[in-house]
Amino acid sequence: MDQGQFASTLLEQAVTELSRLPGVGRKTALRLALHILRRDESEGVALGEAIINMRRGIRYCRICHNISETDLCPICSSAGRDQSTVCVVENVNDVMIMERTRQYSGLYHVLGGVISPMDGIGPDSLTIDSLIDRIESNDNQIREVILALGATMEGDTTNFYIFRKLARFADLKVTQLARGVAVGNDLEYTDEITLGRSLLQRTLFSDSFNG
Amino acid sequence: MDQGQFASTLLEQAVTELSRLPGVGRKTALRLALHILRRDESEGVALGEAIINMRRGIRYCRICHNISETDLCPICSSAGRDQSTVCVVENVNDVMIMERTRQYSGLYHVLGGVISPMDGIGPDSLTIDSLIDRIESNDNQIREVILALGATMEGDTTNFYIFRKLARFADLKVTQLARGVAVGNDLEYTDEITLGRSLLQRTLFSDSFNG
Repeated sequence: MDQGQFASTLLEQAVTELSRLPGVGRKTALRLALHILRRDESEGVALGEAIINMRRGIRYCRICHNISETDLCPICSSAGRDQSTVCVVENVNDVMIMERTRQYSGLYHVLGGVISPMDGIGPDSLTIDSLIDRIESNDNQIREVILALGATMEGDTTNFYIFRKLARFADLKVTQLARGVAVGNDLEYTDEITLGRSLLQRTLFSDSFNG
Repeated sequence: MDQGQFASTLLEQAVTELSRLPGVGRKTALRLALHILRRDESEGVALGEAIINMRRGIRYCRICHNISETDLCPICSSAGRDQSTVCVVENVNDVMIMERTRQYSGLYHVLGGVISPMDGIGPDSLTIDSLIDRIESNDNQIREVILALGATMEGDTTNFYIFRKLARFADLKVTQLARGVAVGNDLEYTDEITLGRSLLQRTLFSDSFNG
């Protein structure tokens, strides 16, 4: 074929754009493109339009940096949420994960990552300063910050960095997610460090049934 | 959040559309959508537009059923291709694969699949009738049909079905791709059936260097 391996430059462009997605190589991109071609035109157009509308329409909440279609996200602008608690999470996805537990009614602060010198991510690339400003400008309205980063080395480092930065707010309570045996897991599938922690941080049995 | 787990209906729509792609579940779709959101707006818009343009602009060649931006594909309309040979392949991707060998200068016929009763694909779902018509209406211009389907049970079944359908064209030569030891492979990595076939269908050594 004159244009190299592709029968169509339109196909080639779609493959090139699709292969920019994470985990999508050129072979997978071609497979996706051919799938789109096999399906109804309306389906392919709907996919393209949904991507464009999402990218053009979504911005980040001015306060918590969660994705939003408006200046303030639905959580920050909701009167029903507890304004005294801020849960610090790594990314937008973690907000959805926390919301799914239906156990949290406070606000969020999306960091945009965790400190990871190996990947060139320092504290300045994250929204830590914005968190400090948020607490400072809030006149003691925020009483508790829950550090809800992943239980990884980077997460722990970031937790500790934020904890030290928040030390100057004397009345602020800083907590973190409990580490322990995952619900549904046998002890034999729980690693020793987690098990050791869950032993040291054991809780009153009566608390488990709100007794 | 009011809209369920998603902070934005635009995000939700994009995730829904992305998860229609093969091999993309809802979790992967969300990961892809968040990746698109993190990148420049122009990149996300380019992806969406490439998909729409491809889906709207590409149709199928009237003769060989390969994808094309015009009524006749570049191969069918090329004066430089050998009009006497038609290579029957399963799908559009196989045309590209064959072209990449740079060993073929004839025409193609894209079947659109192989006969697979398990998947509900019978001969009528494929472009076999169109192949017959093509040979019939061509007054002996087509001298050879190369069956280039995969070396699978379905491929073999389809090859045999087409072979019998073509039996009425007395002067037509019907060939198939050679089966044998893959170039670069040791014998120990070649299965016994392939090895047995390659022994029965051994070729003159002198042919291998055009001697």
